[in-house]
Amino acid sequence: MTYCVGMVLEKGLVLMSDTRTNSGVDNISSFRKMFHWAVPGERIITVMSAGNLATTQAVVSQLEERTKAPGERENSLLGMPTMFTVATEIGKLLRETIATQQDANGRSGRNRFTASIILAGQIAGMEPRLFLIYPEGNFIEASSDTPFFQIGELKYGRPIILRGYDREMSFEDAVKLLMVSFDSTLKANLSVGMPLDLMVIERDGFTPSHTNRITSEDPYFQEISSSWGDALRTAFHSLPDYRIRK
Amino acid sequence: MTYCVGMVLEKGLVLMSDTRTNSGVDNISSFRKMFHWAVPGERIITVMSAGNLATTQAVVSQLEERTKAPGERENSLLGMPTMFTVATEIGKLLRETIATQQDANGRSGRNRFTASIILAGQIAGMEPRLFLIYPEGNFIEASSDTPFFQIGELKYGRPIILRGYDREMSFEDAVKLLMVSFDSTLKANLSVGMPLDLMVIERDGFTPSHTNRITSEDPYFQEISSSWGDALRTAFHSLPDYRIRK
Repeated sequence: MTYCVGMVLEKGLVLMSDTRTNSGVDNISSFRKMFHWAVPGERIITVMSAGNLATTQAVVSQLEERTKAPGERENSLLGMPTMFTVATEIGKLLRETIATQQDANGRSGRNRFTASIILAGQIAGMEPRLFLIYPEGNFIEASSDTPFFQIGELKYGRPIILRGYDREMSFEDAVKLLMVSFDSTLKANLSVGMPLDLMVIERDGFTPSHTNRITSEDPYFQEISSSWGDALRTAFHSLPDYRIRK
Repeated sequence: MTYCVGMVLEKGLVLMSDTRTNSGVDNISSFRKMFHWAVPGERIITVMSAGNLATTQAVVSQLEERTKAPGERENSLLGMPTMFTVATEIGKLLRETIATQQDANGRSGRNRFTASIILAGQIAGMEPRLFLIYPEGNFIEASSDTPFFQIGELKYGRPIILRGYDREMSFEDAVKLLMVSFDSTLKANLSVGMPLDLMVIERDGFTPSHTNRITSEDPYFQEISSSWGDALRTAFHSLPDYRIRK
């Protein structure tokens, strides 16, 4: 599996993804799941993916190829007028890639080649936007009601984001929140693994304003992981006690 | 879905289950998922179930019928020598019930009638024991390495139990921990719903030493639910801040 989260804040976008892929528990490797394309001062487009690795790599490679082929520039993410058209194009590419694999593999291929994508970015003159693209190629956009998207093993780390998220929060707090959410997930599920990729995109920056690859030796992550346990226990003991009536 | 947790403590056993069942989001009802049979001073046996409601009710009803039919007393939970034989018998009944439904419904029935059961209890002269019984009828027993079992929608509420559980903890703390775990799950997933059923079984008590049906109006649950949000935020802000290098 995988765990990726994208968040819209007042100040911009924050994204985090893990790097574990596995086919069975005895075949584990690390692959980057976060990719971005930027035209400094004009646009930044980032995708994170969950699902079949061959599918997601095929989608990303095709997006990558297009940006490098000037002759096909009209298909490129770097030439599209809005984030909506970018989401539509990536959705189409994702659906077609999955369909090709499923057709080639008949009934046994059903649901094996599926994948989902979180798309985040901003194009000059427009707002930062965040989309969740389904394997069917359709998509939804984050709103003030649902200001973050998760894909993959999302359940373990969801309660803390539901409680901690605040649209007005600083980038520093958002990163801390994601660290806690990922730590809880890593502790509970072997199919999500370090290192983690982090990207902060400041509103109207049109470039990653901060990126980090967080390994298991990262001193900040280690500190969060150990002090979160203590902080949770303190929080827990601060709650009123249950009284057992016999 | 469902959410049930069973825990072994030094002092005894603590069990909690929700009551929501649904077939689609427009067909929601409340059913008890926790049942117990006791011979005061000699044994207590409690089961909690997740999965197809017709299957789990059929299993529980058959267990219930047997305890009431003196002529079949040799099959009854109340006559079995050990918790292991109880687990074996319930596993057999669960497997047969599922198989009967699947046979009657052919291919379309595959995986539709499945269910899992948490079994907890103690028989005089032996230790309190906790089992997780699979739809296949086999089962595993809790140990010091894995001292609690969850069934149903277990992921949301798992991180807090992993962090908070301590075999030496008081019943009061264990109930508080389960309240927090259930609250996190209820906030994130509509298929788990109030009221909750709670049972505390003191070691060598051979009777429920405390039971409670916790409704959404329960003042203690409301207090936990609201103060846990505040306590989490305090815990979160007590963590060291991330420093963004630009």
